[in-house]
Amino acid sequence: MSNDNSKNEKPSTDEVETFNIDKLNNFSEWFTEIVKRAELADMRYNVKGFIVYRPWSTISMKLMFDIYEREMDKFGHQPVIFPSVIPESNFQVEADHVEGFAPEVFWISSAGSSGSLEERLALRPTSETAMYPLYSLWVRSWRDLPLKLYQSGKVWRYEGKSTRPFLRGREFIWIEGHDVFATLEEAKAQTREDMQISINVMQKRFGIPFIQFQRPEWDKFAGAVHTYAADTLMPDGRFLQLPSTHLLGDNFSKAFNIKYMDAEEKEHFCYQTCYGPAISRIFGAMIAVHGDNVGLIFPFEVAPIQIVIVPIPKRGQIKMINQFCEEVKELLHDLGYRVQLDNTERRPGDKYYFWEMKGVPFRLEIGQKETKNSQVTIFRRDTLEKAVVNLDDLEKELQRLSKEYFQVISKRALDIFQDRLAAAETLDELVEHLEDRKMVRIPWCSIDLNGENCAEEIKDQLAGAEVRGIDVQETETPAEDATCFICGEPAKCFVYVGKQY
Amino acid sequence: MSNDNSKNEKPSTDEVETFNIDKLNNFSEWFTEIVKRAELADMRYNVKGFIVYRPWSTISMKLMFDIYEREMDKFGHQPVIFPSVIPESNFQVEADHVEGFAPEVFWISSAGSSGSLEERLALRPTSETAMYPLYSLWVRSWRDLPLKLYQSGKVWRYEGKSTRPFLRGREFIWIEGHDVFATLEEAKAQTREDMQISINVMQKRFGIPFIQFQRPEWDKFAGAVHTYAADTLMPDGRFLQLPSTHLLGDNFSKAFNIKYMDAEEKEHFCYQTCYGPAISRIFGAMIAVHGDNVGLIFPFEVAPIQIVIVPIPKRGQIKMINQFCEEVKELLHDLGYRVQLDNTERRPGDKYYFWEMKGVPFRLEIGQKETKNSQVTIFRRDTLEKAVVNLDDLEKELQRLSKEYFQVISKRALDIFQDRLAAAETLDELVEHLEDRKMVRIPWCSIDLNGENCAEEIKDQLAGAEVRGIDVQETETPAEDATCFICGEPAKCFVYVGKQY
Repeated sequence: MSNDNSKNEKPSTDEVETFNIDKLNNFSEWFTEIVKRAELADMRYNVKGFIVYRPWSTISMKLMFDIYEREMDKFGHQPVIFPSVIPESNFQVEADHVEGFAPEVFWISSAGSSGSLEERLALRPTSETAMYPLYSLWVRSWRDLPLKLYQSGKVWRYEGKSTRPFLRGREFIWIEGHDVFATLEEAKAQTREDMQISINVMQKRFGIPFIQFQRPEWDKFAGAVHTYAADTLMPDGRFLQLPSTHLLGDNFSKAFNIKYMDAEEKEHFCYQTCYGPAISRIFGAMIAVHGDNVGLIFPFEVAPIQIVIVPIPKRGQIKMINQFCEEVKELLHDLGYRVQLDNTERRPGDKYYFWEMKGVPFRLEIGQKETKNSQVTIFRRDTLEKAVVNLDDLEKELQRLSKEYFQVISKRALDIFQDRLAAAETLDELVEHLEDRKMVRIPWCSIDLNGENCAEEIKDQLAGAEVRGIDVQETETPAEDATCFICGEPAKCFVYVGKQY
Repeated sequence: MSNDNSKNEKPSTDEVETFNIDKLNNFSEWFTEIVKRAELADMRYNVKGFIVYRPWSTISMKLMFDIYEREMDKFGHQPVIFPSVIPESNFQVEADHVEGFAPEVFWISSAGSSGSLEERLALRPTSETAMYPLYSLWVRSWRDLPLKLYQSGKVWRYEGKSTRPFLRGREFIWIEGHDVFATLEEAKAQTREDMQISINVMQKRFGIPFIQFQRPEWDKFAGAVHTYAADTLMPDGRFLQLPSTHLLGDNFSKAFNIKYMDAEEKEHFCYQTCYGPAISRIFGAMIAVHGDNVGLIFPFEVAPIQIVIVPIPKRGQIKMINQFCEEVKELLHDLGYRVQLDNTERRPGDKYYFWEMKGVPFRLEIGQKETKNSQVTIFRRDTLEKAVVNLDDLEKELQRLSKEYFQVISKRALDIFQDRLAAAETLDELVEHLEDRKMVRIPWCSIDLNGENCAEEIKDQLAGAEVRGIDVQETETPAEDATCFICGEPAKCFVYVGKQY
């Protein structure tokens, strides 16, 4: 498990250690070990909570950024780049926001050998207070609206909780969208659009299942009117928060003086939303939901290498086989696939283990028979099945297989996810399901602030279980006589309860 | 010049102010004004030296990053993401490096409400001291070499000099490549490869002319054995430094203990290089060299919008004309072009001025005649010429025109650049050429440290003129009797002298 010399593109000839950890029952160990073994990240950077993303995760995250940004563009957003530092005075402007984020800020208070700064600078934990002073200059008339901008980059939060690579740390990489509208209705519609973007990208492109919740009042973004957030489930049944979108109402526009003049020259405060998909965390969720006991399984579209070619040497035929391998590689490269020919000195079997552990979707095995018949043997990482394909059919077959592969891994992830959902009618049932490592739907008094005590009770009584909010797709309401398990008041809604990863 | 409501994609109907500044004679004003008017950046962020990049520059810089990264990949690099903070103890390890960069560091010394950190953290001014401790863990054997990694992101430098949008600031966005080799020869070859990458991207894709210099000993990167850097010339004849590549030798590998075991199990220190193209600055150089008196001229490949369609309304025909415009837009969109249909209420002439100022390469004018004949009138931003093209020929014609357009603007930029180069045989000639705003080649004693006094003399006597180094393409040496203008010693080389932007 030590940092060996197996660089991605040039695995060493050292003995290959096989990977085999029961993901379902030892998820925490599985995750820690796969991050090391697949060389996704290095945890040995000497600042607490900061990690180094290695090529095998970085290449994939860059592809994920690209897909996410194209989707933001499609919905009318434009990219910007704002400074990473925020003057303390900006940061202080919105009271709830500063209260929520102050405990998490890294502060810059000097520069150069002697240089003291005019004012302390916050290393941005999120960019509202960097962007909105400029928004107040940019938005003048109704013609400037809607203003829909996003930036991709890093934010820094001095998190107290223990850090986990990709899933929780003090530096993470994300996209943040910040939109401004003339009316509250348009802002509300934007939060729905943001949730649609989450579905279009995370579910339809990355194959990650999740539920989107309206968060309870006591669990909102600092300064928001409402927060809507996606939760997925880790293999151990614990939830992990994925992108959230926040209806900011006019809280920030009033604090930062973002006003527009309507067609009749009347001035109004604007309504705002913000949306924050954290790519590093989504990557963590993606490998957690798709991986299996022998290693990673990358969705085809975001795999750092999509196809690996492994030659099966045969005495006297090596040159011919290698030539054919090169030919196949060129063909696939020209078709636009990310392909690698593994012509290191390791044994084919070792290469198989290695690339399966790394999660490469397809392996082409090419030996004497394949070379003679102008064929390849395709191994699929999703089903672990093999098939022989003629070179002439390879392009078409890969198109078909890559679609099917995505369907297989998405369906599998969704099945596991749905299996982890349950409903409880009584406190005992809730306890039982939670012990079964499920996320549980229960009738509930209220997600307004007067439900907070009950949520605290749940947390205290049930080992940290948390009320996640109302599923935004929820169509049912509790029966008329249903009551909250905790306070016994009439149940007005269903909420989900789960434990945090 | 105020921040009006002309958003890129939805220009206001307000009066259009035309842009007309003599770039050659008032370059400084031209640059400042075009940054505002074309909405490239906003200078009103309230931290000195930090600016906001607006969509019109950000979209282009993202395209530039993509082109640059693909080229880095092609030469065998892989992407990584390192933390933006560096512990003070790492930062102190290489003596020359810390001496060079310490005056420019922003320091983080606290976090959270109370939290004091174990150690001060530098906001990285460059990433050697963040990356190399990990390199010392990753490199073990000759099989791990070469190690060629890059990251794209921000760095921060507390610059004393006055800041200029894109060209000089306290936060800039760049790519930094950090490579490790077994031998000095391979490291030297990498600096040549880096210079080739600069040519392949900056010259061949962005159309920016430059000379690459070996910098004098007194003007090296802090900790380097040699520095090679590209200089381009601004329209006022002043030089601007573009990417530099540094031969680090074994200075850093000894400081950070980066060693490898050769095939005979013998341990050696590695040899390193680093390379740092700053995209924000290259963007600034690109708009400076290509723009003209009426505004920006974007290279086709990195234009935020490549083609704008302007309908010429005609009473009774408006619906038909708009329909045809939509059809053309769809066609171009499907062909993969970044296209926009400007159907705001402004007059066509105002739209022409606006999009010319914004630097969009091609404008399609579509009125009654074009609609009836299924044609478009193409206006080229490079030559300001118009031509009529049948819709059926548009795809082919755009392919041809976009290549020709790039040739025209690259050639024009190169001609101006070469016109600004001169050679001097005497001090008087040097003075004269510098007054003529040229970059001047002169015979020179030495770029070793014993030439430094002469360089200081030049600076003192000639209003800040600087010795930039030896052109790496230089094939000539001075005549045997040639002497250094300053010390009168025999001239061993030719160097270029210029003034800084």
